[in-house]
Amino acid sequence: MAGTTSQPTSRTRSWWGWGWTDAHPDDAECTAMGALLPGTLGRPLPVPRVSDLEIAGPAVEPPPSLAHLVSTDREDRAAHSMGKAYRDVARALRGRPGRVPDLVARPTDDRDVADLLDWAGERQVAVVPYGGGSSVTGGVEYRGDAHRAVMSLDLTAMGRVLEVDTEGRAARIQAGTLGPSLEDQLRPHGLTLRHFPQSFEFSTLGGWLATRAGGHYATGRTHIDDFVQSLRVVTPAGTSSSWRLPASGAGPSPDRLFLGSEGALGVITEAWVRLQERPRHKASAAVAFADFQGALRAVRALAQSDLSPANCRLLDSGEAALSGAAHDGSSVLVLGFESADEPVAARLERAVALARSHGGRYGGADGAVGDRDGAPDGEGAVSAWRSAFLRMPYLRDGLARMGAVVETFETAATWDRIPGLIDEVRREVGAAAVKATGHPATVNCRLTHVYPDGAAPYFTVLAAGRAGDEVAVWDELKAVASEVLHRHRATITHHHAVGRDHRPGYDRQRPEPFALALRAAKGALDPRGILNPGVLVD
Amino acid sequence: MAGTTSQPTSRTRSWWGWGWTDAHPDDAECTAMGALLPGTLGRPLPVPRVSDLEIAGPAVEPPPSLAHLVSTDREDRAAHSMGKAYRDVARALRGRPGRVPDLVARPTDDRDVADLLDWAGERQVAVVPYGGGSSVTGGVEYRGDAHRAVMSLDLTAMGRVLEVDTEGRAARIQAGTLGPSLEDQLRPHGLTLRHFPQSFEFSTLGGWLATRAGGHYATGRTHIDDFVQSLRVVTPAGTSSSWRLPASGAGPSPDRLFLGSEGALGVITEAWVRLQERPRHKASAAVAFADFQGALRAVRALAQSDLSPANCRLLDSGEAALSGAAHDGSSVLVLGFESADEPVAARLERAVALARSHGGRYGGADGAVGDRDGAPDGEGAVSAWRSAFLRMPYLRDGLARMGAVVETFETAATWDRIPGLIDEVRREVGAAAVKATGHPATVNCRLTHVYPDGAAPYFTVLAAGRAGDEVAVWDELKAVASEVLHRHRATITHHHAVGRDHRPGYDRQRPEPFALALRAAKGALDPRGILNPGVLVD
Repeated sequence: MAGTTSQPTSRTRSWWGWGWTDAHPDDAECTAMGALLPGTLGRPLPVPRVSDLEIAGPAVEPPPSLAHLVSTDREDRAAHSMGKAYRDVARALRGRPGRVPDLVARPTDDRDVADLLDWAGERQVAVVPYGGGSSVTGGVEYRGDAHRAVMSLDLTAMGRVLEVDTEGRAARIQAGTLGPSLEDQLRPHGLTLRHFPQSFEFSTLGGWLATRAGGHYATGRTHIDDFVQSLRVVTPAGTSSSWRLPASGAGPSPDRLFLGSEGALGVITEAWVRLQERPRHKASAAVAFADFQGALRAVRALAQSDLSPANCRLLDSGEAALSGAAHDGSSVLVLGFESADEPVAARLERAVALARSHGGRYGGADGAVGDRDGAPDGEGAVSAWRSAFLRMPYLRDGLARMGAVVETFETAATWDRIPGLIDEVRREVGAAAVKATGHPATVNCRLTHVYPDGAAPYFTVLAAGRAGDEVAVWDELKAVASEVLHRHRATITHHHAVGRDHRPGYDRQRPEPFALALRAAKGALDPRGILNPGVLVD
Repeated sequence: MAGTTSQPTSRTRSWWGWGWTDAHPDDAECTAMGALLPGTLGRPLPVPRVSDLEIAGPAVEPPPSLAHLVSTDREDRAAHSMGKAYRDVARALRGRPGRVPDLVARPTDDRDVADLLDWAGERQVAVVPYGGGSSVTGGVEYRGDAHRAVMSLDLTAMGRVLEVDTEGRAARIQAGTLGPSLEDQLRPHGLTLRHFPQSFEFSTLGGWLATRAGGHYATGRTHIDDFVQSLRVVTPAGTSSSWRLPASGAGPSPDRLFLGSEGALGVITEAWVRLQERPRHKASAAVAFADFQGALRAVRALAQSDLSPANCRLLDSGEAALSGAAHDGSSVLVLGFESADEPVAARLERAVALARSHGGRYGGADGAVGDRDGAPDGEGAVSAWRSAFLRMPYLRDGLARMGAVVETFETAATWDRIPGLIDEVRREVGAAAVKATGHPATVNCRLTHVYPDGAAPYFTVLAAGRAGDEVAVWDELKAVASEVLHRHRATITHHHAVGRDHRPGYDRQRPEPFALALRAAKGALDPRGILNPGVLVD
């Protein structure tokens, strides 16, 4: 089976597209979606098959002592050739995936990882760490030709919760543990990590840590970083194991150097992470705004209050319409509160009142706005939005089969930058799409995470492609978007990571002395330059 | 005036001891305190005078272009020879202060800092960054002989709030701004940083950032790290200026490399920091516990709740007695809540109820326990404890004049370690004091900051000295304490920094690959090894 992991499932992962093959839209659904977007193909591109690819045999053989960890299966190798960005899907659909790795290794413990790194270092084999493979920034793909061969290092055979400290609410967890398995293993202890990126089903703890993933909480602890007690990282220069601490002031944080290192400094193999009791009290609501600027002011007031909503996601009118949250041109603010130890209805009421004081309408007539969900296990607020959120990547791939260009990108900036930034991204990316394709495009925005001092806007682009040249169209739009971000000093990524696709923006953003320090650290930990080459530093 | 800064005051800073000279206990008060501690001297050591020290002329002359920034005054140089740890005070009292720097430079902007670093690099002059000079870990003192001369780089001429963003609640502030001046400059904007380390009056923003200082909040955002939007750092390899962002996932955090770098990687010259509205609602209370273990369980429950107390400090019975918070052998939990936007009485009530469910007594008969402070500008809960807290360093110096050994140290560990750790520190440090001095010692503990997964114990040691050999006694006790911390994998420092005194513990604690990376980063940013030599790495 292509793209499977060692964590058991009866379903089949797609080698080229998002998630499970049985959840992909069929040809009829693709055609119907395409009909809504002028300029797309009349019928879907065929589902790509590995058997149609020219894949050479592996350029190296693994040594006998490690052979039991290594696969050279073509399907397996093809499934590890790229992440799951739109440009990955589009390349696969056109029969031009990324460089197919020579080997796929599945270590079972730290010793295996160290042995594989030793061997790769001796043979000049590039090592690309791979968790769930859901990178949307070219993070798990080898580009270049400076290495003799490429090995994808799939961590999913290391998928166990090893220890749980119920008193201190923490667990030691192997890096290759996929989201659902991680929560399944914690559930019997009454504890949860509550880290739910959109990729939750298809991403791992190690991937979250290596990319500083954004999770469930819209305010406060938005990134996985804040849940880390300690990390274990295997590097070519030895294994780094930090102490399990609630906090420390002893020098620069060792963990913060590896968080976000994207496999370039070492392979994260396990972590102690902070857990929580499962929430017993939940309340959510949606508030509609006729005026997006008023909605922004409401969200800022909420983020600067003591209310700490778990959910505080603002959908602009386009995003609200697309997800079914509102159809009258309103922007919609999705609010959610939760707690393990006290009712949250009063906090929700205060939040709604605050939103109304900035022009919000609660309990509108259309049925979607004003939805209120008190179900004990509901995750979100507006169920229409929630469903769309999880289905979105599948629909993206369906539209990609119609030749459309469909992708997202995200950033963060301080409040003073937010209105202008959002306006200019919409306008300039929209204009670039018209120029590139001859058809109008949709550029929607939502705020996924909010802070007292700023917010994280998340943009969705829906555009016609140019048949056979879809990747180039996207690259043009992304370059325009990145230019706007840079002009506003908005980060090139809030939680999608840098990978290879964001390198130009990242290189301009990071302070040059920090780049010097990072290169030096890389040289010290990975002297042969085998670890995820091209990511973060050259 | 010795030890003065450019930020105006009519009072005089002590060159050898804590704070203001006019706040020092006089001879009679010292004698009275000494009488309470068996084994101390019968009368106080004289207040040390710079004129009694043998201080050679500077080994280098500053170049004419920088001469206006540089002082060679003996009093000035002596005042910059050490921080304010007990061992610094004791050394001064015995006429053996640390290496007196050759020069004291006071740059007024980044250009000055860069020029001074350039000159120092060319001449092999060590540069020791100096904020308020309140280091208690040997952080501002040169030890060694590998450099031609030593320059103390006093940042207090860079003491302004440069920009305030009231909408996004943030300010750009120069690193040399002392605590009171920082709050004074923010007050007209209705904003506050609310970072109040014990050293608040005598420490700077830059010092807090370089040492990852612990502040006002006992839960949540306990360290200054969490308030940083961006940093500006002048290094010998160029100036690092990170973007002002509410959050980012673009590679490892540049700011987190410089936070805690203690002047070894560069000189922090300014930062954008996150501010808050001044709290309008406050409530506090003290809860007494006959049983310290019960108190620990109560504090853990509070830290794991949603209550987020601003103050949640647990004093053991010795600490409670010393500060006047309780005299009946009780431990005392000091609780405080505050908010800019809603009343906090209900949260306090829930917290008190939770504490009572673990055996706490609220509203005891002795008048100190049960204190409740609703005054709008009160900072703490139990006023007796608060006063003692601020007066403590002065009393320490008074006792030091009586030949006593009086010092604190702090750590953090996960909850499973806390009871055993505290017991063993008390027992083993107490026994070591008896062995070293022939007299029993007091070892008290309080928890200064608490987390869902652990706590930060803070120990106070009160012991007799050995006349003329007080520093050696303290070094013996500290070595024993550090050994206990290491055995329990408790950090060598939660917020006092590493400096030079904590190097042995720090070197054992940090993962070796991280040390490799840090050395490499240091080599890249400070290739001539002039920046605070001996701190963090060699």
